[in-house]
Amino acid sequence: MGGRAIIAGAGALPGLLAAAGPALIVRFEGAQGGTEGADLVARFEHLGALFHGLKARGVSELCLAGAMRRVHFAREGVDAVTQALLPRLAHAMGQGDDALLRLVVGIFEDQGFVIRGAQDLRPDLVARAGVLAGQCGDGADSARARAVLAALGPLDVGQAAVAAGGQIIGIETLQGTDAVLRFVADSAPGSGGVLVKRAKPGQDLRVDMPAIGPDTVALCAKAGLSGIELQAGHVLMLDPVAVVAACRTHAINLWAVP
Amino acid sequence: MGGRAIIAGAGALPGLLAAAGPALIVRFEGAQGGTEGADLVARFEHLGALFHGLKARGVSELCLAGAMRRVHFAREGVDAVTQALLPRLAHAMGQGDDALLRLVVGIFEDQGFVIRGAQDLRPDLVARAGVLAGQCGDGADSARARAVLAALGPLDVGQAAVAAGGQIIGIETLQGTDAVLRFVADSAPGSGGVLVKRAKPGQDLRVDMPAIGPDTVALCAKAGLSGIELQAGHVLMLDPVAVVAACRTHAINLWAVP
Repeated sequence: MGGRAIIAGAGALPGLLAAAGPALIVRFEGAQGGTEGADLVARFEHLGALFHGLKARGVSELCLAGAMRRVHFAREGVDAVTQALLPRLAHAMGQGDDALLRLVVGIFEDQGFVIRGAQDLRPDLVARAGVLAGQCGDGADSARARAVLAALGPLDVGQAAVAAGGQIIGIETLQGTDAVLRFVADSAPGSGGVLVKRAKPGQDLRVDMPAIGPDTVALCAKAGLSGIELQAGHVLMLDPVAVVAACRTHAINLWAVP
Repeated sequence: MGGRAIIAGAGALPGLLAAAGPALIVRFEGAQGGTEGADLVARFEHLGALFHGLKARGVSELCLAGAMRRVHFAREGVDAVTQALLPRLAHAMGQGDDALLRLVVGIFEDQGFVIRGAQDLRPDLVARAGVLAGQCGDGADSARARAVLAALGPLDVGQAAVAAGGQIIGIETLQGTDAVLRFVADSAPGSGGVLVKRAKPGQDLRVDMPAIGPDTVALCAKAGLSGIELQAGHVLMLDPVAVVAACRTHAINLWAVP
C-alpha cells in the first residue's frame, strides 16, 4: 500500500484530514492557506517536480482539501510537464473554478494517483440524516429553498439558498455561502429564515464537497436565521462538535434530510 | 367614457403616468411615497370610502403604479367593506407581496374597475428590442443569466441575474434589483459582468412590470458591470431618456432582446 498526501488549501479541512492517518502535507506557494507546516512545497510552474517528489516519497493516493482559488502563475520558468499542460490549464481557467478543479483532478489521475475524498478519510464529518441540534425546522421555507436549488442544479449554480416567510431571500452564487449570508444580514435582517445547503448534481464530492463550520453558524445567527438544513451524506461539518456547539450557542436548529 | 385614477406608490412611475392624460391621483396614508400631491387620500381601513369616492368622481379605470410595500393596518375602526375583506387580506399577507397584489387587483376588479397597465398608458416607456445605448453586449454572460432566470421562473423567483466571466455572481431575491446590485458591488467588484432583467412568467404586467431607472444604471456602474440586457416589451424604463443618458455617462451598454 502506498502513502497518502493531502494537497492542502485554506480552512480547517486539511488539519481534520491529517488527523485521519499518516499523510504528507503538500501546499502550493502563493495559494490560500500559506505554506507553513507543509512537508512539501509545490509550485504550479513546476508540476513535474511535484509529481516526481510525490512518487519519490511513495505517495499513491491524494486528497485535495480546502479552498484554493487561482493563484498567480508565472509563464516563465515552467518545467516541461507544466509546459505540456499549459494549453489545457489556460482553457480551463477561462471556464471558471469548477472546470479548473476537474482538470487538476484529471491531471493527477493521469499521473496514476488515486483521488480520495474527505468523506472517505473522515466519514464522521459527514452530516447524517436527522436532527443535529435543536429541533427539526423542516417546513415551507426549507421546501421552498430546496425547490430553488433543484431548479438551479442542472445549471451548476447554487449550493445554498435562504428562505423566510415562504419567500426566497438569498441564493448562493460564485461568491459562496458566507457572502450570501452577509447579503441576507444586510438586506433582510431578523427574518427568522432557514439556510438550505446541498451539493449540486454535477459536483465532484471527492474534491469539492459542500461544508459548513462554526463560522457559518455564526453568520446565520448574524443574519437572523432560525435554522440550517443540510443534505444528508453530501455536506461536511468542520468539525461536527464545534458546529453543533455553535448552533446551541446561537439557538439555531440544525438538521439533515436526504 | 369614465375617468381614470392612478393608485400611486413610491418612485417615478406615478408621475410619468400622470403625464399620459387627466387622472385622479390616489395615495394611501402610511404607504411609501407619502400623500403629497394626492387628489384623494385613502386608508386601507376604509376601502368602502375609497370605492365610493372613486365612483363618485366618475372613475372607471385604475392604474396601480409604483412600489407599495405593506403598511401598518389598524384592525380597529375598519369600515364594513374592509371588514368583509379582512379574512382574504390576512390570508394573502401570509403569502407574500405577490399574493397581496393579486388580491388587491381582484378586489378592485370585483368593484367594477378596469385595471390598466403602465405600458398601456405610456407604451413609450417600454423597452423595445434592439440596442438602446452603446453596443449589443449579448454573449455568454447574458445567455447564462437568462438560463438562470428561465429555470427559476416557474418558482416565481428571480426577475434579474448578474453573470460575469461565464459565472453567475448575483440572483435577485425578494429584496429586489438594487439589493442584488449592491451585493455584487460588495462581493465581486469590477467583474465587468452583465445584468439581465426580465419579467417572471407569472407576473401581472398590468400592475407589477419590471422597471429600471437611471439609479439602476448608476448601481450597475458601481458594481463594475459593463452591460444591461432587458426583456423587450416586458420592462419599463423610467424614463427612457434619463436611462439612456445614464448608460452613456457610465459607459454601460444597454440592449433589449425578446
